[in-house]
Amino acid sequence: MKRPTIADIAKATGVSTGAVSYALNGRPGVSEPTRRRILDAAERMGWAPSNTARALAEGRVGAFGLIIDRPAPMLGVESFFMRFIAGIESELADTRTELLLRVTDAPEAEMEAYRRWSAERRVDGVLIVDLRRDDPRVRFVQEVGLPAAVVGGPGGAAGLPCLHSDDAEATAEAVAYLAALGHRRIARVAGPEGLLHTEVRSAAFTDAVRAAGGEPRIVHADYTAESGARATRRLLSESSRVTAVVYDNDLMAVTALGVAREMGIAVPSELSVVAWDDSVLCSAVRPALTAVGRDIADHGRRAARMLEAVVSGAEPRSASTAPAEFVPRESTARAPVHS
Amino acid sequence: MKRPTIADIAKATGVSTGAVSYALNGRPGVSEPTRRRILDAAERMGWAPSNTARALAEGRVGAFGLIIDRPAPMLGVESFFMRFIAGIESELADTRTELLLRVTDAPEAEMEAYRRWSAERRVDGVLIVDLRRDDPRVRFVQEVGLPAAVVGGPGGAAGLPCLHSDDAEATAEAVAYLAALGHRRIARVAGPEGLLHTEVRSAAFTDAVRAAGGEPRIVHADYTAESGARATRRLLSESSRVTAVVYDNDLMAVTALGVAREMGIAVPSELSVVAWDDSVLCSAVRPALTAVGRDIADHGRRAARMLEAVVSGAEPRSASTAPAEFVPRESTARAPVHS
Repeated sequence: MKRPTIADIAKATGVSTGAVSYALNGRPGVSEPTRRRILDAAERMGWAPSNTARALAEGRVGAFGLIIDRPAPMLGVESFFMRFIAGIESELADTRTELLLRVTDAPEAEMEAYRRWSAERRVDGVLIVDLRRDDPRVRFVQEVGLPAAVVGGPGGAAGLPCLHSDDAEATAEAVAYLAALGHRRIARVAGPEGLLHTEVRSAAFTDAVRAAGGEPRIVHADYTAESGARATRRLLSESSRVTAVVYDNDLMAVTALGVAREMGIAVPSELSVVAWDDSVLCSAVRPALTAVGRDIADHGRRAARMLEAVVSGAEPRSASTAPAEFVPRESTARAPVHS
Repeated sequence: MKRPTIADIAKATGVSTGAVSYALNGRPGVSEPTRRRILDAAERMGWAPSNTARALAEGRVGAFGLIIDRPAPMLGVESFFMRFIAGIESELADTRTELLLRVTDAPEAEMEAYRRWSAERRVDGVLIVDLRRDDPRVRFVQEVGLPAAVVGGPGGAAGLPCLHSDDAEATAEAVAYLAALGHRRIARVAGPEGLLHTEVRSAAFTDAVRAAGGEPRIVHADYTAESGARATRRLLSESSRVTAVVYDNDLMAVTALGVAREMGIAVPSELSVVAWDDSVLCSAVRPALTAVGRDIADHGRRAARMLEAVVSGAEPRSASTAPAEFVPRESTARAPVHS
């Protein structure tokens, strides 16, 4: 039951592989009776056109590319990408388009992969994630002629459609909630500088805390547990200690619970903690974490749909996903009275 | 800078696309001066052979396939697969082989994808994960002529090489440690029945607890936080309560900490908790979780290497990865005296 090759069919019918190829591709160069005999044999032997042949005929290779430029160990600790990928996969499930996934460890490696994918025609288009300000990838994929959709924005994706979630609004909502609980010294443990969504959230955070008459404080970390713990220890060691911290992912917020316990600071009575993105992890720990949550799988599904539209030449517009939801749980409370 | 097509080169040189194709593929049918002129234009225009053309020439399409048959939302909560994929990716990073990833929601959908991949020649080979007893996929991929390597075993992968970690030994070690701490009523919250590694661990667990003069107790769950919480509540509600529980993943063990707190049962003084696989999550929560850990990324790397050997015709043998390590942390202690 091994897939028959053109050579197998040639052998079975006693003709040249060239003749089989002509017959299967409906090209002239082989007599009608021979063509009939070849096609019968091909059908009997279970021959199916290879994707290679299909790509030549249809002009599509049936694959979308996704490159994640993060240290590989990071991928296992943050659930965002796996949920995002799960969403893409559910969108592609009933199609003949496959997801081609690559993890790179430097922006140059990501560009090189795009160049190769374009040159070798490995994919019909790519999804660009982790958008940065003046992101060179945006121009690059257009230069090498690779159809693309961008996850992130708005802005910075000149000429490419992007799928964007309104992080500014969600940030403002989280800060307003903390302010209503009496918090004024509020910190944000942000993801890496340079990522557009980090900047959008930081700007909105600063505005919202100031609007509430508070003192914004931003520390950068890299989403890992270690960096989250370090940032938290630093914040909780300051003389005029913050009473609330908003974290840029779930893992750093979970780690913060451990650091607070280790330093004898009670959550939520002495310290309120907010996580982003919400995840099963946030509801599994104690106290369960108040969090800002989005439907990340839906984000993946919509990104895949947008890229499909680009690839089929539909020139889709940029779009926003449903705004993130604020989910209060046990890790937030009124600011301590003495604060 | 868009990738030039054969048609572009034909236009630029004023010949037919057929002539360009002959010239680029080094086939007869075009005069030497014309061939030279075409090749010069192709080089000037930055033409590179497409993967499609390369596949036809080299007989390899440059892709490995991985299908994960789990509900998509599960993928975001368990770090195993993302770490495993990260390992595969690091092995493929400097090669021209891409990873083609598909998430299916039923065994039939997985088989159908294998059939299609084989028929359309989308991949050079596949990695089969989550091996089951008498797994139909093992015979199926061989029937459809798809080179494959299996992750899991030993046994059950008739004819296919498999990469296997000695879960029995690691299970025995964890139980022996708990027994040395005085525990006799030890439970295991296992993954789904039918998965070979679940069965291997369960058998080893039963043997080890009995050998220590204890009462083995096994409850099945499905790796989700909800199922872990349910299983834990059930175990902790029994009249002759267990004093130690070994969980089949990290998330269920984290959830157990929350359930114990909710029921007023102190960890570790009244209940010892062991997680498997160890993860950053295990060390981030408080008390930090004692865990059984493997280098999952290395597992992925080795699996990719094994499949590469299969695809290049090397007929690799099955192999074992380094045994899992037992990492004691804060969630295990001597069994309570009154127990």
